[in-house]
Amino acid sequence: MLNTKSKLVAALFVVVSQAAMGFEALPDKPPVPADNSMSAAKVKLGQQLFLDPRLSVDGTVSCNSCHNVMGSGTDNRPVSVGVGGQKGGRSAPTVWNSAFLSVQFWDGRAASLEDQAKGPILNPVEMGMPSSDEAVQRIRSIAGYADEFKAVFGGKEPVTYDNIAKAIAAYERTLLTPNSPFDRYMKGDKNALPEQAKRGMKLVEKVGCTGCHMGPDFAGPALPVGTGFYQKFPTYENNDYVKKYNLMADTGRYAATKNEDDKHMWRVPTWRNVALTAPYFHNGSVATLDEAVRVMAKTQLDKTLTDKEVEDIVAFLNSLTGVFPKQEMPNLPLTPNRSLTDK
Amino acid sequence: MLNTKSKLVAALFVVVSQAAMGFEALPDKPPVPADNSMSAAKVKLGQQLFLDPRLSVDGTVSCNSCHNVMGSGTDNRPVSVGVGGQKGGRSAPTVWNSAFLSVQFWDGRAASLEDQAKGPILNPVEMGMPSSDEAVQRIRSIAGYADEFKAVFGGKEPVTYDNIAKAIAAYERTLLTPNSPFDRYMKGDKNALPEQAKRGMKLVEKVGCTGCHMGPDFAGPALPVGTGFYQKFPTYENNDYVKKYNLMADTGRYAATKNEDDKHMWRVPTWRNVALTAPYFHNGSVATLDEAVRVMAKTQLDKTLTDKEVEDIVAFLNSLTGVFPKQEMPNLPLTPNRSLTDK
Repeated sequence: MLNTKSKLVAALFVVVSQAAMGFEALPDKPPVPADNSMSAAKVKLGQQLFLDPRLSVDGTVSCNSCHNVMGSGTDNRPVSVGVGGQKGGRSAPTVWNSAFLSVQFWDGRAASLEDQAKGPILNPVEMGMPSSDEAVQRIRSIAGYADEFKAVFGGKEPVTYDNIAKAIAAYERTLLTPNSPFDRYMKGDKNALPEQAKRGMKLVEKVGCTGCHMGPDFAGPALPVGTGFYQKFPTYENNDYVKKYNLMADTGRYAATKNEDDKHMWRVPTWRNVALTAPYFHNGSVATLDEAVRVMAKTQLDKTLTDKEVEDIVAFLNSLTGVFPKQEMPNLPLTPNRSLTDK
Repeated sequence: MLNTKSKLVAALFVVVSQAAMGFEALPDKPPVPADNSMSAAKVKLGQQLFLDPRLSVDGTVSCNSCHNVMGSGTDNRPVSVGVGGQKGGRSAPTVWNSAFLSVQFWDGRAASLEDQAKGPILNPVEMGMPSSDEAVQRIRSIAGYADEFKAVFGGKEPVTYDNIAKAIAAYERTLLTPNSPFDRYMKGDKNALPEQAKRGMKLVEKVGCTGCHMGPDFAGPALPVGTGFYQKFPTYENNDYVKKYNLMADTGRYAATKNEDDKHMWRVPTWRNVALTAPYFHNGSVATLDEAVRVMAKTQLDKTLTDKEVEDIVAFLNSLTGVFPKQEMPNLPLTPNRSLTDK
């Protein structure tokens, strides 16, 4: 029995039913908002900001600390660690291919990558900046950044919190992992997928996983930016997994909206590179992908998979690991003759 | 009045007196130990390890967290922050050009870059690995690393703590910043130094700074690896700076050797890129370079500089900021279908 859904979700089901339900290769380019066009200089600036721990209050935590672009785009921890060794409440989602998500955060509370980028900088248990003004002052006081912002954004006062977020979002839109075995298969290379992965591909449709895990990111259909695709998790609460992995403790989207209909509703997460982003779920409670598959089948579809079915599905999920592009390491603008951080 | 020096230091003064006392451009290549030759594959492996937070117990701290190679090779903090938000006791020295230092750490307790690399991984307030065995197991369990170690080091069991340190040290030997204005000046470009910096260059000799800050790294003469060049700091204790900046609290090399003669003895730190590595001294207590110059003149030479002298010396120190090379960002070996870190 599904619970009553919010009007938004009901409306989305209409959209979904009209969308192509099949498998999709990763598009070459992500959606780009009209007010934040891409440029090489903006992407470079965004990469610097993404990797710069000076965006945290004590100079120890960068966006990259939890979303490591040298790795899986996560920290592979159950929950992340912010300034002062504080632990967050949810597991860091991967930044790779997040450009294809129509809303951000586990609960979809940010409508865009730009909105998302503004959150962790000010979160007291993440980067801990006391205010957006202080974050702006920190960046503005670094001469190299001030020059770059001027070149990229122009205007009298180009270093603003909005522009910090825009640069970071522009960089994140370059973080794509194309050419997974699955993508090569979809583009016509029928040998790109091992037989086991092909069996898994059929199974995820047959079992019902792709009822939600569809679209370019396997995170729902391609919806307009800001329109979330949510699902209740767990849908079936009465099983051992829910207790074992403490899946009801976090109320999900409800915590952000305080709307009763949003209790335990979550943005459908991506499957791309999922083999690399353990541990799993919003609380990082499940250590391995095979167990995550078992949990999802039971809690979302009330199905118990055989070991062979699980192995086949994992083989398919492995085929969604893409090619991580080479990047040049940025040189961060430095601050001659002064100390930036507090004592 | 200088205190009695240890026999080692006495011996060193003989060496120093025989060495060229003048200024030296940064050599093109650092000394490389016979048992750790450089190769592109070893350097790449070392870069990955240097940047990989999985070398820390909870997957949050890498070598790069405190020695940021995208920046000044430091964290620009008074003292660094390790796992669990713990603070260390001393300020992180820059990793840039550390290949030219004949001993490592503030107190010279590591004879080589290889020895140094083994310290922070096991330090409970830095990367916090409980033992070298656990660090080795962590790396060995990552298939991509196991393959790379085999290719680089060969043998039956190539992933060893020694080899982890060797790879990191090989990478660190590539972290050089040539072509500072000073270096270009030394190589014949007489316009590379502004007049103010030229005045500062004369002053550091006249005032006496280059009695210790000599050699390719301005950290002492080029001595055999493992032979330290130490100085007492503060040499003159009876001044306001010593109290204000708490310069006597840390006993320096004595804490490592328990030898009375080593009390408040420190490895002479490098001047290269010193304009970028604030805050200053072993305890990171001095925020700006001009103040650091005043403190050093008073505590080491019992001299009080005029503001103009300080400005000229700072101009010279600014001319020691080199060119930071472009690096490719590594892709770290990933771990499909499992979670690496603890809960």
